[in-house]
Order: sequence, then C-alpha cells, then structure tokens
Amino acid sequence: MGNCLHRATECCERPKHPYMRISLPAVCFVWQTAMIILFGVFIRYNEESSTRWVEYRKANNISSDVENDFYFRYPSFQDVHVMIFVGFGFLMTFLKRYSFSAVGFNFLIAAFGLQWALLMQGWFHSLDYTDGKIKIGVESLINADFCVAGCLIAYGAVLGKVSPVQLMVLTLFGITLFAIEEFIILDLIHAKDAGGSMVIHTFGGYYGLAISWVLYRPNLEQSKRLHGSVYHSDVFAMIGTLFLWMFWPSFNSAITDHGDGQHRAAINTYLSLAATVLTTFALSSLFEKHGKVDMVHIQNSTLAGGVAVGTAAEFMLMPYGSLIVGFICGVLSTLGYIFISPFMERVLKIQDTCGVHNLHAMPGVIGGIVGAITAATASVEVYGREGLKNTFDFEGEFEDRTPTVQGGYQAAGLCVSIVFGIGGGILVGLILKLPIWGDVADENCFDDEFYWEVPDEEEVLPPILEYNNHMNLNKRTDVVTVESNFSEPQG
Amino acid sequence: MGNCLHRATECCERPKHPYMRISLPAVCFVWQTAMIILFGVFIRYNEESSTRWVEYRKANNISSDVENDFYFRYPSFQDVHVMIFVGFGFLMTFLKRYSFSAVGFNFLIAAFGLQWALLMQGWFHSLDYTDGKIKIGVESLINADFCVAGCLIAYGAVLGKVSPVQLMVLTLFGITLFAIEEFIILDLIHAKDAGGSMVIHTFGGYYGLAISWVLYRPNLEQSKRLHGSVYHSDVFAMIGTLFLWMFWPSFNSAITDHGDGQHRAAINTYLSLAATVLTTFALSSLFEKHGKVDMVHIQNSTLAGGVAVGTAAEFMLMPYGSLIVGFICGVLSTLGYIFISPFMERVLKIQDTCGVHNLHAMPGVIGGIVGAITAATASVEVYGREGLKNTFDFEGEFEDRTPTVQGGYQAAGLCVSIVFGIGGGILVGLILKLPIWGDVADENCFDDEFYWEVPDEEEVLPPILEYNNHMNLNKRTDVVTVESNFSEPQG
Amino acid sequence: MGNCLHRATECCERPKHPYMRISLPAVCFVWQTAMIILFGVFIRYNEESSTRWVEYRKANNISSDVENDFYFRYPSFQDVHVMIFVGFGFLMTFLKRYSFSAVGFNFLIAAFGLQWALLMQGWFHSLDYTDGKIKIGVESLINADFCVAGCLIAYGAVLGKVSPVQLMVLTLFGITLFAIEEFIILDLIHAKDAGGSMVIHTFGGYYGLAISWVLYRPNLEQSKRLHGSVYHSDVFAMIGTLFLWMFWPSFNSAITDHGDGQHRAAINTYLSLAATVLTTFALSSLFEKHGKVDMVHIQNSTLAGGVAVGTAAEFMLMPYGSLIVGFICGVLSTLGYIFISPFMERVLKIQDTCGVHNLHAMPGVIGGIVGAITAATASVEVYGREGLKNTFDFEGEFEDRTPTVQGGYQAAGLCVSIVFGIGGGILVGLILKLPIWGDVADENCFDDEFYWEVPDEEEVLPPILEYNNHMNLNKRTDVVTVESNFSEPQG
Repeated sequence: MGNCLHRATECCERPKHPYMRISLPAVCFVWQTAMIILFGVFIRYNEESSTRWVEYRKANNISSDVENDFYFRYPSFQDVHVMIFVGFGFLMTFLKRYSFSAVGFNFLIAAFGLQWALLMQGWFHSLDYTDGKIKIGVESLINADFCVAGCLIAYGAVLGKVSPVQLMVLTLFGITLFAIEEFIILDLIHAKDAGGSMVIHTFGGYYGLAISWVLYRPNLEQSKRLHGSVYHSDVFAMIGTLFLWMFWPSFNSAITDHGDGQHRAAINTYLSLAATVLTTFALSSLFEKHGKVDMVHIQNSTLAGGVAVGTAAEFMLMPYGSLIVGFICGVLSTLGYIFISPFMERVLKIQDTCGVHNLHAMPGVIGGIVGAITAATASVEVYGREGLKNTFDFEGEFEDRTPTVQGGYQAAGLCVSIVFGIGGGILVGLILKLPIWGDVADENCFDDEFYWEVPDEEEVLPPILEYNNHMNLNKRTDVVTVESNFSEPQG
Repeated sequence: MGNCLHRATECCERPKHPYMRISLPAVCFVWQTAMIILFGVFIRYNEESSTRWVEYRKANNISSDVENDFYFRYPSFQDVHVMIFVGFGFLMTFLKRYSFSAVGFNFLIAAFGLQWALLMQGWFHSLDYTDGKIKIGVESLINADFCVAGCLIAYGAVLGKVSPVQLMVLTLFGITLFAIEEFIILDLIHAKDAGGSMVIHTFGGYYGLAISWVLYRPNLEQSKRLHGSVYHSDVFAMIGTLFLWMFWPSFNSAITDHGDGQHRAAINTYLSLAATVLTTFALSSLFEKHGKVDMVHIQNSTLAGGVAVGTAAEFMLMPYGSLIVGFICGVLSTLGYIFISPFMERVLKIQDTCGVHNLHAMPGVIGGIVGAITAATASVEVYGREGLKNTFDFEGEFEDRTPTVQGGYQAAGLCVSIVFGIGGGILVGLILKLPIWGDVADENCFDDEFYWEVPDEEEVLPPILEYNNHMNLNKRTDVVTVESNFSEPQG
Repeated sequence: MGNCLHRATECCERPKHPYMRISLPAVCFVWQTAMIILFGVFIRYNEESSTRWVEYRKANNISSDVENDFYFRYPSFQDVHVMIFVGFGFLMTFLKRYSFSAVGFNFLIAAFGLQWALLMQGWFHSLDYTDGKIKIGVESLINADFCVAGCLIAYGAVLGKVSPVQLMVLTLFGITLFAIEEFIILDLIHAKDAGGSMVIHTFGGYYGLAISWVLYRPNLEQSKRLHGSVYHSDVFAMIGTLFLWMFWPSFNSAITDHGDGQHRAAINTYLSLAATVLTTFALSSLFEKHGKVDMVHIQNSTLAGGVAVGTAAEFMLMPYGSLIVGFICGVLSTLGYIFISPFMERVLKIQDTCGVHNLHAMPGVIGGIVGAITAATASVEVYGREGLKNTFDFEGEFEDRTPTVQGGYQAAGLCVSIVFGIGGGILVGLILKLPIWGDVADENCFDDEFYWEVPDEEEVLPPILEYNNHMNLNKRTDVVTVESNFSEPQG
C-alpha cells in the first residue's frame, strides 16, 4: 500500500521551495487572531483562579489558601513546561545544522498548540453547560502542555523534512485528534492514563511515523552530509535529554490524585528511569563496534522507561515493578535504534529522524500493556477498599467495574490510541503532501539555512589575532576566516 | 542635548584600559565586607524562618507547617532565581566572543545586587521599628531577585562596552534607585505591579538606555567583527530565552496574593507569552529578506508578552485579554528590533547591545498602560466585592479608593518609573564616564580576552588524528591547530 | 607511604586498554538484575505514597492531602535532582574532548547509585522491623540523590582517568561506605548535617582524592593536549555551575524540618553563596596575570559557600554569619585552585582533575567546623526552648544533651567523615588498581574517543557553500572539511 500511495500522490509533486514570507506570517496572524476570538467567546477563569475564590472558599468551608489546586500542581506544571520547551526542543538539536529549527519551531508549534489545546480539551472536558464557558485553572495548563507533547513527538519523526507551515498544520490537526482520542479513552472507555503512555506517546509516535511514511523522500540521501551530529550539538542534545529525564516524575504525577497518587507516580517514574539508563548503556556498548557507547542511544533510549511507566505510574506497580519496566524498555528501545529503525527506513519506507518509534511509540505500547496488566491484577488486599476505588475512579456509572474488566478497557484504550495515531497520521500526511506548503527539496533537508538568518561564518578569531601578533605578518590586518582560507590555494 | 552632553564630558576622555587587578578585587572585598557589617547590624530572620516559628504558630493558631509562607512561594522563588542567573545570563551569551562576560559578570553583579537589595528594600519596606531590624523571609529573597533584574536589564543595554567595575557601580546605584522608586510607586502611590512591568522593566530598560546614551561610543564599529553571533552562541542564548519564557509565569505570580492571586497571574502570563511567540515569528518572517526568521527576534521579542502582562497579571485581565496583550507585544517588539533600534543608534546615539528597549522598556510601558486600563475598568460585577478589595488592597488609608482613581494612580506610577529610569541613568552614566573605572577601548569591545583567561585556541583535534591515520603522513605528529594552518601558504 | 604504595602495586601494572564490550554490559546487566531482586524482597511504598494513605489520613486525623510529605519536599527534590544530573554532569564538561564522558558517565553512575542508595540507606535508616521491608517516600528519593552526590564528587577527582566500569565499582563501594558513615554520624553520634557538609562533601571529596592518589599516573602529561578547555566547553560548564549554585538552597533545605527549618536553611544558603561569588572574583582577578578572571575559579569556587554552610544551614547561623562563611570560602577555595592544587599534584602526587579538594573537601571541613561552633554556642535566648529542642532533636535518648556537648559530637562527626573518606578511598583505589577493569593508557586520558562513538569531524559547512555561491568556483561541489583542507598544501 505504501508504494501505491506514494505513486498515487506523485501527481502532487512540485518544485520544492519555501515561500515562508507569505505563508508563515499569514498562518501565525490568522490563527492567533482566531485564538483571541475563541478565547473571548469561550474561556474564563475557574473558581480557584478567579477573584471569586474568597467566596468559594467560604462557601465550601476550605480552611486555607494552600488547598487551592495551584499549590498541589504548580511545581509539577513548571517541570512539565520545561520538558516541553527545553526538553523536547534541545533533544532535537543534535543535528549539526538544524539546531535553530529544532529549538525554534518546537517553540513555535508548542506556543500555538497549547492555546488550541485549551480550547479543544475544554470543549470535551470542562465545558460548563450552565454558561457555555470553559473554566481553566492550573490543571488545564498541564493538560494543554500534555496535548502539545503529542505533536512535538510527531515533529521528531519528520524533523528536518517539513516546513514550519507544515508543522503548524500538523499541530492543528494533531491537537484536534488528540482531544478526541483522549475523550474516548479517558471519558468514554474510562481507562486511566496518568502519564499518557497511550494518549500521548503511542498516539504521538504513530501519528508522526504515519506522516513520515506518507511524506517519504526517496532521495533523502542527498542531504546526508547534514544528517548527523557534531561534538557540541550532541552536548546540547544532552541538555534536552536530562531535563526530560529529571522531570519525567513530574510529568507522570502532574495530574494524578492529590496525596498518595502524585507521590506514588513520582516514585515509580524515578525508579523506572533509573533502570533504563543502565540497560541502555549495556545494550549500546554490547552492539556497537569496539564496545563504544553511542550518544544517540543515551540521548533517547534512557527516556523510554518514563514513557512505559506512564499509564501504571499511579497504580500499585511496586518499586521492583517499576525497575522491571525500566529494564525492559532500555533493552528494547536501544535494540530499536540498532535494528528496527534501519529496517523501517529500508523496508517500510519510514524515515524517522529522531527515532520516535523507539522512544515513544513502542515504549508507549509497552506502557499501555503494563497498565492493563497492573489494572487487571489490582486487588483489595494491595490497594485497600477505598484505595482501589480512588485509584481507578470506580464511582458513578463505573461503580461496579472490577479490576479485571478495567484491564480489558485499558487494552481497548491502547488500541484506540494506535488507530488514531496511524489513521490520523495518514490523513494529515496526505494533507501535508498538497503542493501548497512550500517544503524544501531533498538536498536541502536538515538545513537551517532555508528558514533562518544563520550567522555568516564561524570566524576563527583568536588564533588569527595570535598569529598576527606572534609572526609579525601584518599583511592581513583584517579578520581572516576559514572561508577565505579555502581560496588561498586557488590564487 | 545629547551632543552637548557628549562634548561636555569629553574632558574626561582617557586612555582606555582595564586595570582590573586592583580595582575589581578592591571593590569586591570592600563591598562584601560592608555587606557583612550592615547585615550584622540590620538583618534578622522573620518569624516564619526563625526557630520561634513553633511559638508563633501556636500564638496565631496556625494549624499546619504548610501554611508557612515558604511553601506558598519557594517553588516560584527558585524559578525566578533561575531566570536571574541562567535566564538573563545565557540570553546575553549570543555574542561570538563575549559569552564568558555575559554569563560571568551577570553572575557577579546579581550576587552583589541581591545583598544590597535585601538591605535597601528592607529599610524601605520591612524595617521593624520596635528593634530597628529588617526581618527577612522567602518573599524578601524574591524581592531581592526582582530588584537585581532591573540592573541586569540595564546590563543588556551596555553589554560589551563597560568593565566589571563599572557594572558593579551601575548595580550599586541601580539597586538604590530601584528601592526608592519602588517605595514611591508601591507604597506612596499605592499602585499595583505584581510582575514589575513598571517597577522592574520600564525602570531597568530606561536606566540602561540612558547610561548607554551617556557612554555613547562613536567609533564602536571598530569592534564590529565581534558584534555578532556564531551558530552555537545563538543556541546558548536560546537556553536563556527559554528559561525566561517558561518561568515568567512564576515571576509574575511570585509575590501576588496567596490562592487565586498567584493562580491567576500564572495563567495570564502563560497565555500572553504564547501569543507573543506567534506574532514574533510572523513579523520576523515578514520583514526579513527571503522570509527567513531572525534568531535575534526569537531570542528576545518572544519574551515581550511576559513583560507587558506584568502589572495586570493579578487582575481579572481575562484569558483573551492576555492573548491580546501578547499579540500586540510580539508585533511591536519585533518591529522595534527591525526599525527602532537602528534609528536609536543612528539618530539618538543610543547603542543598545541587546535591544532592551524592545524587550523591556517599551513592553514595560505597554504593561503599565494595560495595568492602568484594567484597574480603571475593574468592577464589582467581575471581581466580587471582596475580590475587588483584595486584589487592589483597598484597605487602611486606601479604603475609599475606586477603580477609576486607581487607574490614574497606576498611570502615575508608570511615569515615576520612566523618570527614575532616565534621570537615574543619566546621572549614573556621568559617574561611569569618570576616568577611573578602566573600561576598554572601542576596538576591544565585545571581547572576553580583556577580562578573562580565554582558552588558547580551538584545536581541531579529531580530524587531524584521523588524517594522520588515514594518509600515513606522519610528518606532523603533534597537534595541528587551525592557527598553524594559516601559516602554511606563507612558508 | 605514597611511593611505597605505588611501588607495591606496580605488580598490578598491565597493558591498559578498555574492553568495554564485555565488562560494561555485564556489570550493568548483573547489577540491575540484582537491584530488581533486592527491591522485590525489600522495598515497598510508605504510608504516604501507598493507596493506604486515605486510611492513614483518617486514622491520624490529618485534615488535608496537602500535609502529605510530598508537598513539603517534592519541589526541593526536583531541584536536587537537577543538581545531580545537570549540575554535576555539566560542571565536568569543561574539558575539550571529554564532555560526553562527563555528562554521560555521570548519568550512568548516578542512575545506578540511587538504586543502591535506596537499599543501603533503607537498611540502616528505615527498615520496618515488623515486616522486614524498607518503606520509601519522597524523602528517601532525596536521600538517595544525596548519597549519589558523594560519588559524583569523587568522580570529579578522577575525571578522565578511569573507565566506566571502574566508576561503577567506585560508586558501589562509595554508596556502601556513605551509608555506614552516615549512620554513624547522624544516628549513633547524633550529629546534625542538613546539607551534608561532612556526610556528603567531606566524605566524597576525600574519597575521590584518596582514590586519585592510589591511581596516580606519573606520565599523565602525555595527554596534556586534552587537559584543558575550549571556549564553548567552558560555557557548557557554566550551565552546571549555575544550576548547582541556584538550587543549592534547595539542597541544604531539602530534608530539614518542616516549616522554619526548611525556610531558614534556604535563606542561609542563598546568602552564603552570594558572598562567595564576590570573593571568588576578587581572588581570581588578584592572582591571575593582568588581573584577568579565570573561568576555572568561577565555575567551581563560587559554589564553596554552599558546601560550607551545609551543616549549619538549619541552625540560627544568622544572615551575617552566612555571609561570613561564604566570604571565607570564596577566598580559600580560589587560593586552593591557585596554590594547593599544583602543590598536591607535584608533592603529594594527587591528580585532582576538577579540584574537588577546593570545592568539596576543604569547604566541607570548614562546614563541619562552622556547624560545631554554631551548635556549641546555641542558646535558649536565641532559639527559644522549643526551638532549641526541635533544631537539634534533643529528645529520646538525647534529651539531656546540651549545645556545648552537641558541638563536640559535631566535631566527632567531622572526623568520622574524613576517616571514612580517606580510608575508604585508599581501599577502593587499591581495588581499582587490579588489572581487570580496563582503564585507558596515559596518553588516552581525557579522550571521549575511547568510550564513545564521536562524530567524525566538525565540518565547516556554511562558509564553503557561500564561497561556492559567491565565487562561482564549482570545482568542489562536495562538502569540504577542515580535514581535507590540511591535505591541500601537501598535494
């Protein structure tokens, strides 16, 4: 089907060039204006963030301001915020000449996405039917950041191959699909997914992979010279890796229940991630030549444990359970980078720049399965009667659901996220293939030059100055750059 | 007047050279010793940070340790702290050979400034007249960091052109002026300024611009070779940008009222900043040649929305109101970089290295205006009776103030901050022109070399090693550097 | 004894080469598996992180979820977490070609160490004798991170000279020794050490120095070409410095008493660190030629004040007391880098790559002494009766201890940490000298090349492209690298 689809869309082939000047400003202006109008119509503060809080406190007999949800969630929110902007942004700076786009376009689409997410998620989850308004608070901000994460994951798969306008379109549809899928999984199916293994990572991963598959570039090796890292770009990427790794416990615990829910989710994630680091190093060293470690694995696979523990983070997974999940994910994710990614590119025609399959999609599926098993095996002995009810929200119309049944629904939720990811990705991929978005030619992929004012040249200043000083060769008083150096032998 | 002033101070012209060896250690030692003495005389813990807290809790019937102000404000304090040291520090690392000074001197003057700020703000705001002591707690630390921010903004305007000793002087006077101005605006005029649009950004911006105007260097183009970025220095600067952007909600909410005050300020800032990103990208792409985006705009203008929403962040600005403020600021700030900065340099003779006019001064003024309008239009319907009183602190001697009148006082506060910024800046600029501070010559501006032990040369090691291995040309066994390379063709 | 010991171990000399392929994966797999088994047998959630929290709350009449220890400590925990992974990791990236190993192996050993620390500290401190299980919560995570810090400090002393397998061994024994030493100091001697001046820094520093002494490499100058920084690696290191500096108040307050304990510890640390910055700049400028400042000092000595205020941070050290401690440490630590480190290398044969003596060991000892003095001079007048009891935990079997006696025990604690550091370090050093760990030869020290897949070359792309465009010299259409450039003149 891949080939067939690729041929079918060949009619859309066009001379590729980025005409950002018109399209990018237009998209940004129009969409931001739309956001203002929609926010004006729909979005208001909730009772904890409005000045009515004083009255609300009294009416609900809340003893102290510290019980405002803000104090339960704001530290976690800020950690998540760092993951979205510095974590995802810098993780993608590893390419030698695409760091501006990595961190810059990540910034752009996240800033747009979170506004659209507040609306989409608001319509589905927190619309107040008495006045038709969406009431937002700190939990809404966290959820918006989560929603954006799905699209940033997808960006990882197409990094370097799409224009910023295409990214904006990818985000618009991605957020929309996310909100629907999330509504089905969390509200209709009533699956639990604290850290979004299914809702965020599985969906986001497959969404990106499907788009990348539709946008397959057979001649991508024309930009092979740029498709790698340099020493310092790898160090920059480690900033992203570490902030993701460190703050993942906050990610998985940000919207879980107050009290033990947040506490337990943080512990489980902390442990799972620690185990992943060891098995990632082990596998990387085992399979690379001379036993060397590969930065690509350390930058990415070390995070897989956080993804895979997402769904079950708030369950009684037990500390050793978290370690086991982390252990397995470190192994599988690293093997993914070594064996599956090349296979996917060669056979399946999926070019996955950042390896989101190994970091998000596959660990997300594992996370969904772990969540289903953990839920299915939950018991009153371990959780306590009230604990079981609280953890799985067995109340209201779901009062009679048993853990075993819940396990089944968890698995159903996983399937929904996969279907939405792949289906939505193919759809959006076809839209992105329309010859109106101005993406770059194959030989100009992975190059900031086409979107950014890149500093002219990396001048090698201090040596030159020293050279002139020491040798008293004052013929060249101006700055000599590496560039001019190359012309010397020709002269 | 500019020319006149420049001529008037020409008598002070002197051979420019940095004699840091004596002056910098002397200033640091003497001032730090003075701090110790003044702290010994004046500064003590407040009742929430002293061991008397147990007794205080009992006496005031406080039910739990969690109601200690520490737990309301410490997470925000740490975010602000990151903004001051990593945010401001790294934002200024964009110059190709001034990263050490950017991050290093930022570190130095912030560390000095916060001590002096604790004293100055303490004398004005929290002096306990019963024992003549200043009682400090976590809110004092936040306020000290805020106070320092004003001086770091001013550093941005003179970056690369002044010596560290001059920066210390700039900070000493800056903090002093700040404390006075803040006292007038917040206490006497009783204006509200949660995020410091007026008190911090307007004051700091104009303070720096006025100093830069007095210190105008007509021959600054002599160091033009260093007045730009290189690829990786731009990526470093993005670290600063992102930490400022992400933690700005904490900045604007750090000292607002417990409960809904902090909650609302965070939401407003989050939204305003998101909108700014989109319009900054739009404008940058629209006005740059070939529709490319300029890193300078992304690094700076994306932050303008946070500045401009500072004063009104705790008011009922409404989510769409925040988006509108962000929208406008992204546009104006980017236009500022494209049109106003060159104009200021050419016509007004103000050399503004980091463009603080566009990032702080102008958005700060907008923020003051937005604050005045929002205050003037506040109503009991929107705020609730108690909410209105709490938000604007209409109590004590200000009990009878109405929102409309408050709006007028807000505007008055803005004027005070501008007057203090410009007036204080000219004064301090003249002091900094005295021929005793040892600043560098025009051709050595923007160069770390004059203040730092800079690593000798950027050796190009791995290629050489490989080269030798592959080609078996073992004539050069030592490390060959780019430097030596340049001498080759001459030989 | 040094020479004697060096000769005694010469029998162990061996051809040095890293055979990571077998040993590193084996160590990682076996140890991680062991962790899973031990966690399965021993580690469970405590009552605040398990689903039983609802019942526990009711039973103990706790009014709100916000009194879960999670909300008191989680923000500080995340700050400490950043210090461990980004702080320590990036601080060591200053070497020109060892940044991958600095940040990568720091990541590896910290991820292993924290698991082992949860077990070791659990057995000593929180073993529940009713069921033989260790119950963990957020405070356990913080303590595990603290424990890891000791080993990361030791890594700083041997940076560039040991293999990752050796580091794993160093960590295994380091954590073990730490837990024993900590048990003796905090539980048996009942000394207080909130920020771990003695337990973490003194122990960790001397542990690393002793190992480095045993592993002395007489021919280390063979890798001198790599034993320095380049411009951007120094900027990367500043990321580490600043995150350590900013979050140190969280480090010292993370496990102190709720309420005023955490509040006061944060204030004291904040002030001490500020003073250190000024005296570090002063000393650096005073002793370097031409009054320039040395990045090595700014990166390291500015942190000494945080180390030295660790023990006394929760005491009534008074704000000016904190400044005095910071003042002294900035001076001594910088002098250490200028005078003591060269002396130690030349005379004592201790090669201390990062200068942990000046940043951790010596300031740690100062911190221990400051703590002893502050404790000995504590009085009911200053602390209040209840405050004194709370601060020093004068209850249970220590009910009758007086401040003076406590001072003596504090000093005893310091001695224990030194003895454990030096003794343990020599022991572990001898183990690491066994010819089974595969460390690198002297000429390959400080080189990532032997452990990492390092990107081939730093291509100088954009200039070439521009050059071709402008000059129409299309003979070279491929990418020309600096490498190929060197072969030109030979052709």
